[in-house]
Amino acid sequence: MNATRTVELDGHIIDSGTMQRAFGIVMDLGGTFEIETFDVGRHKDETSYCRMEVGADDEETLREILHELHQNGANLADPVDARVEPAPADQVVPAGFYSTTNHPTEIRYDGEWIPVEHIEMDCAIVVEQSSTSNQNSESSGDVVEEGGGEDSVRARTKVLNAIREGDLVVTDEVGIRVKPPDRPRDSSGPFGFMQGGVSAERPSESLIEEVADALVETKARGESVLVVAGPAVIHAGGGDDLARLVREGYVDMLSAGNGFATHDIERGLYGTSLGMDMETMEHPRKGHKHHIYTISEVIRAGGIEPAVEDGLITEGVMYECVENDVPYVLAGSIRDDGPLPDTITDAVEAQEAIREQAREADLVLMLSTLLHSVAVGNCLPSTTKVVCVDINPATVTQLLDRGSSQAIGMVTDIGTFVPMLADAVIEADE
Amino acid sequence: MNATRTVELDGHIIDSGTMQRAFGIVMDLGGTFEIETFDVGRHKDETSYCRMEVGADDEETLREILHELHQNGANLADPVDARVEPAPADQVVPAGFYSTTNHPTEIRYDGEWIPVEHIEMDCAIVVEQSSTSNQNSESSGDVVEEGGGEDSVRARTKVLNAIREGDLVVTDEVGIRVKPPDRPRDSSGPFGFMQGGVSAERPSESLIEEVADALVETKARGESVLVVAGPAVIHAGGGDDLARLVREGYVDMLSAGNGFATHDIERGLYGTSLGMDMETMEHPRKGHKHHIYTISEVIRAGGIEPAVEDGLITEGVMYECVENDVPYVLAGSIRDDGPLPDTITDAVEAQEAIREQAREADLVLMLSTLLHSVAVGNCLPSTTKVVCVDINPATVTQLLDRGSSQAIGMVTDIGTFVPMLADAVIEADE
Amino acid sequence: MNATRTVELDGHIIDSGTMQRAFGIVMDLGGTFEIETFDVGRHKDETSYCRMEVGADDEETLREILHELHQNGANLADPVDARVEPAPADQVVPAGFYSTTNHPTEIRYDGEWIPVEHIEMDCAIVVEQSSTSNQNSESSGDVVEEGGGEDSVRARTKVLNAIREGDLVVTDEVGIRVKPPDRPRDSSGPFGFMQGGVSAERPSESLIEEVADALVETKARGESVLVVAGPAVIHAGGGDDLARLVREGYVDMLSAGNGFATHDIERGLYGTSLGMDMETMEHPRKGHKHHIYTISEVIRAGGIEPAVEDGLITEGVMYECVENDVPYVLAGSIRDDGPLPDTITDAVEAQEAIREQAREADLVLMLSTLLHSVAVGNCLPSTTKVVCVDINPATVTQLLDRGSSQAIGMVTDIGTFVPMLADAVIEADE
Amino acid sequence: MNATRTVELDGHIIDSGTMQRAFGIVMDLGGTFEIETFDVGRHKDETSYCRMEVGADDEETLREILHELHQNGANLADPVDARVEPAPADQVVPAGFYSTTNHPTEIRYDGEWIPVEHIEMDCAIVVEQSSTSNQNSESSGDVVEEGGGEDSVRARTKVLNAIREGDLVVTDEVGIRVKPPDRPRDSSGPFGFMQGGVSAERPSESLIEEVADALVETKARGESVLVVAGPAVIHAGGGDDLARLVREGYVDMLSAGNGFATHDIERGLYGTSLGMDMETMEHPRKGHKHHIYTISEVIRAGGIEPAVEDGLITEGVMYECVENDVPYVLAGSIRDDGPLPDTITDAVEAQEAIREQAREADLVLMLSTLLHSVAVGNCLPSTTKVVCVDINPATVTQLLDRGSSQAIGMVTDIGTFVPMLADAVIEADE
Repeated sequence: MNATRTVELDGHIIDSGTMQRAFGIVMDLGGTFEIETFDVGRHKDETSYCRMEVGADDEETLREILHELHQNGANLADPVDARVEPAPADQVVPAGFYSTTNHPTEIRYDGEWIPVEHIEMDCAIVVEQSSTSNQNSESSGDVVEEGGGEDSVRARTKVLNAIREGDLVVTDEVGIRVKPPDRPRDSSGPFGFMQGGVSAERPSESLIEEVADALVETKARGESVLVVAGPAVIHAGGGDDLARLVREGYVDMLSAGNGFATHDIERGLYGTSLGMDMETMEHPRKGHKHHIYTISEVIRAGGIEPAVEDGLITEGVMYECVENDVPYVLAGSIRDDGPLPDTITDAVEAQEAIREQAREADLVLMLSTLLHSVAVGNCLPSTTKVVCVDINPATVTQLLDRGSSQAIGMVTDIGTFVPMLADAVIEADE
Repeated sequence: MNATRTVELDGHIIDSGTMQRAFGIVMDLGGTFEIETFDVGRHKDETSYCRMEVGADDEETLREILHELHQNGANLADPVDARVEPAPADQVVPAGFYSTTNHPTEIRYDGEWIPVEHIEMDCAIVVEQSSTSNQNSESSGDVVEEGGGEDSVRARTKVLNAIREGDLVVTDEVGIRVKPPDRPRDSSGPFGFMQGGVSAERPSESLIEEVADALVETKARGESVLVVAGPAVIHAGGGDDLARLVREGYVDMLSAGNGFATHDIERGLYGTSLGMDMETMEHPRKGHKHHIYTISEVIRAGGIEPAVEDGLITEGVMYECVENDVPYVLAGSIRDDGPLPDTITDAVEAQEAIREQAREADLVLMLSTLLHSVAVGNCLPSTTKVVCVDINPATVTQLLDRGSSQAIGMVTDIGTFVPMLADAVIEADE
Repeated sequence: MNATRTVELDGHIIDSGTMQRAFGIVMDLGGTFEIETFDVGRHKDETSYCRMEVGADDEETLREILHELHQNGANLADPVDARVEPAPADQVVPAGFYSTTNHPTEIRYDGEWIPVEHIEMDCAIVVEQSSTSNQNSESSGDVVEEGGGEDSVRARTKVLNAIREGDLVVTDEVGIRVKPPDRPRDSSGPFGFMQGGVSAERPSESLIEEVADALVETKARGESVLVVAGPAVIHAGGGDDLARLVREGYVDMLSAGNGFATHDIERGLYGTSLGMDMETMEHPRKGHKHHIYTISEVIRAGGIEPAVEDGLITEGVMYECVENDVPYVLAGSIRDDGPLPDTITDAVEAQEAIREQAREADLVLMLSTLLHSVAVGNCLPSTTKVVCVDINPATVTQLLDRGSSQAIGMVTDIGTFVPMLADAVIEADE
Repeated sequence: MNATRTVELDGHIIDSGTMQRAFGIVMDLGGTFEIETFDVGRHKDETSYCRMEVGADDEETLREILHELHQNGANLADPVDARVEPAPADQVVPAGFYSTTNHPTEIRYDGEWIPVEHIEMDCAIVVEQSSTSNQNSESSGDVVEEGGGEDSVRARTKVLNAIREGDLVVTDEVGIRVKPPDRPRDSSGPFGFMQGGVSAERPSESLIEEVADALVETKARGESVLVVAGPAVIHAGGGDDLARLVREGYVDMLSAGNGFATHDIERGLYGTSLGMDMETMEHPRKGHKHHIYTISEVIRAGGIEPAVEDGLITEGVMYECVENDVPYVLAGSIRDDGPLPDTITDAVEAQEAIREQAREADLVLMLSTLLHSVAVGNCLPSTTKVVCVDINPATVTQLLDRGSSQAIGMVTDIGTFVPMLADAVIEADE
């Protein structure tokens, strides 16, 4: 470690997660740290203080670490002044400008810490001598309070379109002190529950590739993949590709319901799902009977496996499960028609069957089903990996609410997800 | 027309849409009709009566038409008895069994209309002579009321798993009378607003192909395509493929906001969108500055077009718009950073620019933006085709609520939709 | 009928619902109609034509009817010229101005029908003589095409802020012809599914009063109310008020699951629901055991009814059901802990129990449960009234998708809905 | 501190937040701690180790602390054996039974740590001697592996309904070791984004009272309340009660859009909102013009304030703002009709006006508007309190995604929230 610097954290740094983040940043960026002092507040009202020496292989790396640390409230124990540079033109910031957080911020100027006024995120900080402040301030609609001393220096945020040529803009990361608000337990109140959420605004193709990689790696380690699938997988057109994944050996177990299996078999028998043609999206006449016919025919055959052996069922997810010896559990529900002879109608028995699958699984892929996802989730240890895919963010939220906090999720259309996943898996495995 | 039959409709057949559906069914299935009598109820409480002769080329077609008609409440003026067939086994229905709706239903038996008891959808109808009813009824948990006459005949619904071998199950479509409930205007009350909705459970790939076809056909007719795009298109990874559609000539105009353009350009300059790397999904250090830097650099260049000419912007949607002379409108909003010099910050001016685009458009593709979709929708005549794509069903609902009732929509992930659409368009056009 | 006028409809007026709406408007507004000619198009490509004489008690009523008719595409058979009035000031419309739809529109001027250019909803129509058009057009950013004849008259839409003092603005409803686009079946394509949706933007208190009225009226008729309740009713704080409705006699049957009953009883025993204190919203230590303890204690007592008799359960919805002889069905699911001895774990048996309740019900109130709502909905005839309340619009959409098209719904917070409903019911019944 | 015990944490206790939670638990429950050893892992692969002495005033409190600590992975440095007690009956657990987490768990039995098999949440732990294990195991469907030594002891989870009378069930909290999975940074992968979410399943009335208290306390401190309101507040029927809050002095500033103000004024002038009657929920004839008329009339008056002075506007939120000198900012958008003369149509100017309000605010109440909430949120320092209320969880998620991480939120119906809040505020303030 050729470069070191001492930084300090203080405040409610444990409760607020500040300390945890600080340690993480140093490690993530390849640095090291030596804790010099660590005074932990022992009561709610006491703050903690941590002083540590941070080291890195070179100055550049150290600067990066210090930058991230200070964004998170860790400040240099022995700071230097902030640097400023004039804006090259109206509405243009100098290279390396400092972009604000929305936390209270101070900058060090001529050895003094001065607060940044009107803190707001994603702004530049402009330093103004009192003699020049009157000119510029109007451009952002500010009325400068009277009574500032002659030589007084002020720092304040400016949005990009308020920047004027020559404004002294703070650059780099030194001489700046950020103080995220403490969050002592008591003040969090009843609203502590809202911490983030599940966003659909992620690059979908990149995410699908990550799931494909996880699937391929799990199989490469000889571990077991359990797919939990809802009827929407079939309705949305993902049946062929899920069948492909079963056939290609990426699925070791299937957990679903009577509806999923019936729609899948109906699609094979009639090309429809709940009566809708999967190609033309029309509802052929008498299509509404296909659902009941399907169940009736499978009952007549004596179950799904005999129906495959008899040549009644010749394609689809259930077909591939039978042909490839992939065990399946079909759990009954009060919404079911029929049900199929394979469906376990007793909830306690069905839970036992689900439990046995859950114990075997190393990676669980939950596809568009709240009921079955929660049921399987209930039986999983927290060490089993779970990926939950649904177009409805509420499904994922509920899964987490019910204790499966290790689940990771993706909000997307199951009808585009399954085809893309199957393609990505085949490709990743080659 | 070699086959004809006379059918009757009565009740609140206009208000309830029954008549409209009846006419539609005949035409859809290739039949003809001649109205013999049409008495329209002139007051709220009066019912209407329509008697018409339906014709078809052959008996088979006619039967299909009559089947659909009677599902919708049109009944034969001169009916025959219902047909019954014994169930071949427990829980197995005979071929051609009649599957119930949830509307009040009667069957004609020995020349008499008898009501079907316990009507429920997707059931079979079983006819029971009073002498046999006691045996079977227990299987579905029914207690038969005492006091039925010795020779009385009853018809009731049975779910599949209550069917027993030998049960007399109604088949085909004759001798059955269905009566959908009237919905006179006054009784609809305050809840009339809930009529269907936007479902995600459709075969996604088939839907995307339909949109691709619409796009290709519009271009083939020499008509104009307007794409309205929100920033989520870029975040979700659809930027490259939207750029491809522009480059290949499928987009004639673009309507978006400052955020969309900035994210698109940021992605080209830094590979990030709002600071997140689009490949690795990590947030590189200083990534949060990319957004402001992007705007600052475009301001320095004097706008998007000069930035393309200067070689600053070398890829992306905005780049392709400039290179392919596709006009764009960037409307400002109070959420914007910057903004870019091309952004029209005045809402009234921006509306005028949107209005001019809207007047030129023949097909409008709205991609993941509520604000811009409603703004464009406000300016469109009802004759312009609109396809609205969003992962949030509420966006589509709101668009329709605000008057763009001609819009058709798809609930899917924009990050998988745009790549699949681009592929489908290129393919459809070859 | 002292006032009559003849109107005509033509186009695809049956498919598009135009005719149905036209008849409805006349009846709703207290008018009468006599059909003079009704030619129904018998093939997809044929249009229909309807000519009818509309009558009303007085001219004022007739005008209202004609106004609404023409908004919907029915036009006077013998029209007069449109009326115009000068705008009294910039951006101010004359009283009685005509507000446009987004459908193609023509106005009659000097006996000629001229199209309204740039049709767009919620605009005024301004009539311009060619000699004056150049002045005004600039205000809305229009470039007028050259070559208009000297005396030519044009009509075009203007948004409010483009109106200038003196603009000749069309007022009243005469001399205007609106033509909603035909929607022949074939062109609707795969997107026909999106027709409206479920909006949360309704006056909630007024809606709750309507539901309360329906409840009170059902009871007044001696009919039966079935409440279908999900666990969210308890979590969200609606338990006390649902118990109140049971106690006061507004609930005749309850259909729920193991979770609902357990949370309700847990709340009575420990003041918590799934371990969270319902008053302070904190999770008391050991609170997570309450759920299992609750089930264990009820098992020890031998069921809910003996637990009430033993004095273990002394409040809540289940308590009131036992005390007031309100029968309940608790259907099991694979998500359940326990379950309680009262829970029917076999899905087929549970369906039978639900079916019996469904047959008895005249009004069904579905509260925050998709699983149980769909299960009950499956068993209902279309003549049973259904009100579905959920904060998630998708629940209602799915219920309708699965066939319960008579259901009416409300998107609201169950935790505020139940208390307000209970208050409104008590009040309405006094 | 009369009672002390030494506990140990090890593993990735910093990254996983375990240490932070452990310190928090001790403080929350009134205990103290003295850190004896704290070895921080300095590289990604290194684990940390913390040994501390925990103290409390009495044994009971200490036991509570130790219970919570061990649920979170902190284990006694000097443990004793787990306690077991026989189940009093089938499916009944002994009082004080230990309820499992879903984390890997060991119990100490005869001085040895033995792993708990088949870990799953909310189960009991049953200890089995190998000689008795064969009998019981069948009841939960388990097949016991052969080859266990004669005297071997096993511990495994049992769900409630698998418990048999006499089963040795672990009770209390001693002799149990829980090990939550480490979450080293690298393994979190792309899915780190899903951390909880926004749930609607909270007791709504209790939450509303908390918001009311926050409002009353803010005013009591002489601080400033900014209300950000969307048009849905008016549509959903919250107008009267928001006006009441303004009149009673609980609102210091209002931030909204052209739509909000127009609907509010329309409701006062015509009793409708976007043409719908707020009492009857019907759309009166010509109601669709009310929106444009409203704007036209306010333009004629010269603005909202003159319209109040002229007696045109006599009620509603905007009326109360004018009468009570509550400053408002109406920001324009490309969706607007009109706009009203008070609306700031330039986005940059509007942002400046919003910024000035944001700087003054101490508590911000965001009501059903994504656009305005994000715009205001952009300008707020992280020290300003924010409560965001919306029926759509996505609104809150987006607000947080865009940086306003201090926002706390509630998913509820704005139409029931505002009336209940107004009642609760008035009550809390008395």
